[in-house]
Amino acid sequence: MNNTFLKACKGQKVKHTPVWLMRQAGRYMKEYQLVRSRVDFLTLCKTPDLAAEVTLQPINILGVDAAILFSDILIPAEAMGMKLEFTEKKGPVLGEPIRTKSAIDRLIIPDTEDSMPFVLDTIRILRKELEKKVPLIGFAGAPFTLATYMIEGGSSKNFVNVKRMMYKNPGLFSLLMDKITATTIEYLSAQIHAGAQTVQLFDSWAGVLTPHDYENLVFPHIKQAIAVLKKLKVPVIYFINSCAGLLHIAKKSGADVIGIDWRVDMGRAVRTLGKKVSVQGNLDPCILLGTPEKIQESTRDILRKASSARGHIFNLGHGILPETPVENAIALVEAVHAYKKK
Amino acid sequence: MNNTFLKACKGQKVKHTPVWLMRQAGRYMKEYQLVRSRVDFLTLCKTPDLAAEVTLQPINILGVDAAILFSDILIPAEAMGMKLEFTEKKGPVLGEPIRTKSAIDRLIIPDTEDSMPFVLDTIRILRKELEKKVPLIGFAGAPFTLATYMIEGGSSKNFVNVKRMMYKNPGLFSLLMDKITATTIEYLSAQIHAGAQTVQLFDSWAGVLTPHDYENLVFPHIKQAIAVLKKLKVPVIYFINSCAGLLHIAKKSGADVIGIDWRVDMGRAVRTLGKKVSVQGNLDPCILLGTPEKIQESTRDILRKASSARGHIFNLGHGILPETPVENAIALVEAVHAYKKK
Repeated sequence: MNNTFLKACKGQKVKHTPVWLMRQAGRYMKEYQLVRSRVDFLTLCKTPDLAAEVTLQPINILGVDAAILFSDILIPAEAMGMKLEFTEKKGPVLGEPIRTKSAIDRLIIPDTEDSMPFVLDTIRILRKELEKKVPLIGFAGAPFTLATYMIEGGSSKNFVNVKRMMYKNPGLFSLLMDKITATTIEYLSAQIHAGAQTVQLFDSWAGVLTPHDYENLVFPHIKQAIAVLKKLKVPVIYFINSCAGLLHIAKKSGADVIGIDWRVDMGRAVRTLGKKVSVQGNLDPCILLGTPEKIQESTRDILRKASSARGHIFNLGHGILPETPVENAIALVEAVHAYKKK
Repeated sequence: MNNTFLKACKGQKVKHTPVWLMRQAGRYMKEYQLVRSRVDFLTLCKTPDLAAEVTLQPINILGVDAAILFSDILIPAEAMGMKLEFTEKKGPVLGEPIRTKSAIDRLIIPDTEDSMPFVLDTIRILRKELEKKVPLIGFAGAPFTLATYMIEGGSSKNFVNVKRMMYKNPGLFSLLMDKITATTIEYLSAQIHAGAQTVQLFDSWAGVLTPHDYENLVFPHIKQAIAVLKKLKVPVIYFINSCAGLLHIAKKSGADVIGIDWRVDMGRAVRTLGKKVSVQGNLDPCILLGTPEKIQESTRDILRKASSARGHIFNLGHGILPETPVENAIALVEAVHAYKKK
C-alpha cells in the first residue's frame, strides 16, 4: 500500500511528495472518452461499475498516489430535491433556482444510503480494487459553492442572485447554508463509513466573495462541517479556488490540508498558513499545455517552495483541462516523484 | 474645481475621500440607455459628442469626483489592424486571433491622432465641459489584458490559447507584448496631450496568471509603460482585477495609485502596498444590490481600513453592474463624502 498521500495529509515524513490531479479521471484521457461514448455524464456518475472504472484509470495510467471518487458536486443538490441536468452548452442546470423561504423549506436533507446509494456502492467497489494500491478520496462541494448553483440555477458570471440574497436577506441565505451544510456532513460521513479514507471539500466559488463576507457568512459553516467530520478520524482537505485573499481565514478551518489554486505563490501561501496544516497544490493547469521544460521548471519551483510546509501534496491549482496531452500529465507525476528534497 | 481626486492620487491631504465608479457611465442609468437606444456601442465610442455626453452623466447624477473617458479597451486593438465587433451574446469578438509571428508582424503601432481621432476629440470636448468641475481620467487596457483578447479572439474561460503561447513560445508572446505596450504608451501619451489629467491602465485579466509568470512575462511591460507615462507628469493608476496574489509585485510598478478588486481585504492590501502608493477601491459591485445598511456598513469598513494608506480613492472593485439601482450608487457617493476620518 502506497500511503505517502495519507502521511503527507497528517504532516508525517514521506520518501517522495505524493501527487494526484483534480479531475484526473476526465476528458483528456481516451480511456475515459471511450466509457463516456457509451453513457451520458450523469449515468456515468450513477453507475457504480463505470464510475469505479474511470476512477481507476488515472491510477494505472498516470501512477498518481491517490484515487478520487468519480462523481459530481451537484449530485447532493439533486438528492435535496432539485432537478439536475447537464447540457453540452451551458454545463450544469438546476431547475427552479432556490430564492424563497418556501423553496428552502421544500428541500430535504437526504439520507445518502437511501437517495445516493450509487455513490456508496462505487466507494465499496473501489476500496476492493484499490487494496494494496493507493488510498481513496471522497468529496463534496463546500456549502457555499453548492449554494451558488442552487440559487443561480447553474454556473454564473457575477453571482448576482447569490449575493443579492446574502446582502438583502442574510437570514434566508443562512437558512439555506444550514440545510446544505447538514446535507454535506451526512453525505461525507456516509462516504467515510463506506470506505473513503480522506474527504475533500471543493470550494470552487468562495473566491468570488469579499474576505469579510466569506468570514462572516460562509466560514462558520465550513468550520462546523469540518469539526464534525474530523471526529470520524480521516483527513479532511479543504480546497478553495481563488484563495489568495482568504488564506489567513482558511488556516483556522480545522482542515488537515488546505488546497490552493495557482494564483497565489506557494511560498507566500505556506507562510500565511503556518505550521499546523499541510498544503495541496498548486500548478496552473494550463502549464500542462506547455513544453516539458516549462512543466519541469514550474513543478520544481512549487516543490521547493512547499518544502517548508508541514506536509505537501502536489496537485494542480484546479481541474485538469480537456486539452491536456496525457504524456504531459504522466511527465508531471514522474517529475514530482523524482524530486529530491534538499 | 474639485481636485480631491488628483490630490488623493498624489497622497496629498483631502477634506473628504474622492470617489468614482468603474463603468460609471453605463447600462444601469436610464439616461445612458436612452443614448444607446439610438446608436450601437461602437458608434457611441466613436462619436465624440455622444461619448462626451454619457461621460458627463454620472458627474451630474451621482456627484462623483472624477470623470472617465467613455470608450472601450479594445479600440486600440482595432487600430492595430484587427476586426472588432460587439455581439449581444458573446460580447467583444476580435476576428482572426493572433497566434503566429506573421500575424504579429502584420499588426501596426497606430498613431492615435490618425487612427483614433474620436478619442482625442472626446477628451477635448470633455475638458471644456468639465472646466471648474472635476478632473478627467483617460484609460487603456493593460498590455496583458489586451493580449488575452487578441490571442483568444474575445473573452475566455481558461485562457488556454494565451497561456499556451506564453508557455510554449514565450519569445512570440513577448514580441506581441512589445507591440501592444508600444501602442499603449503612444495611445495614453496622446490622451494626456489632448487633456487627460490622469490615466488608468485596466489589467482585468492579470489575475488569471501565476505570480511567477506575471512577474516575469507581464510585469516588465507594465513597468516600462508606466515609466514612460510618468514623464508626462500626470498620475498613473494601475488597476488589477483578482489582485490578491499579485500585490507584492504590483507595488513596484511605479504607478501613483494601485486599484484593487474586492477579493482582498483593504487593510491587508494597504499593508502589502506600503506607504509609497495610493490605493483605489474596493467595494464588491454586488453590494450595490443590497440594503442601504449593507452599503453603509461595507463602505465605512473600507474607508476605515484605507485610512492608513498614503492616499485613498474610493471605487468599486470592478465595473458597476447593469442591475444596480441608481439610487444605491448615489447613496454610496454620499456615504463616502459624509465619512469623517478619525
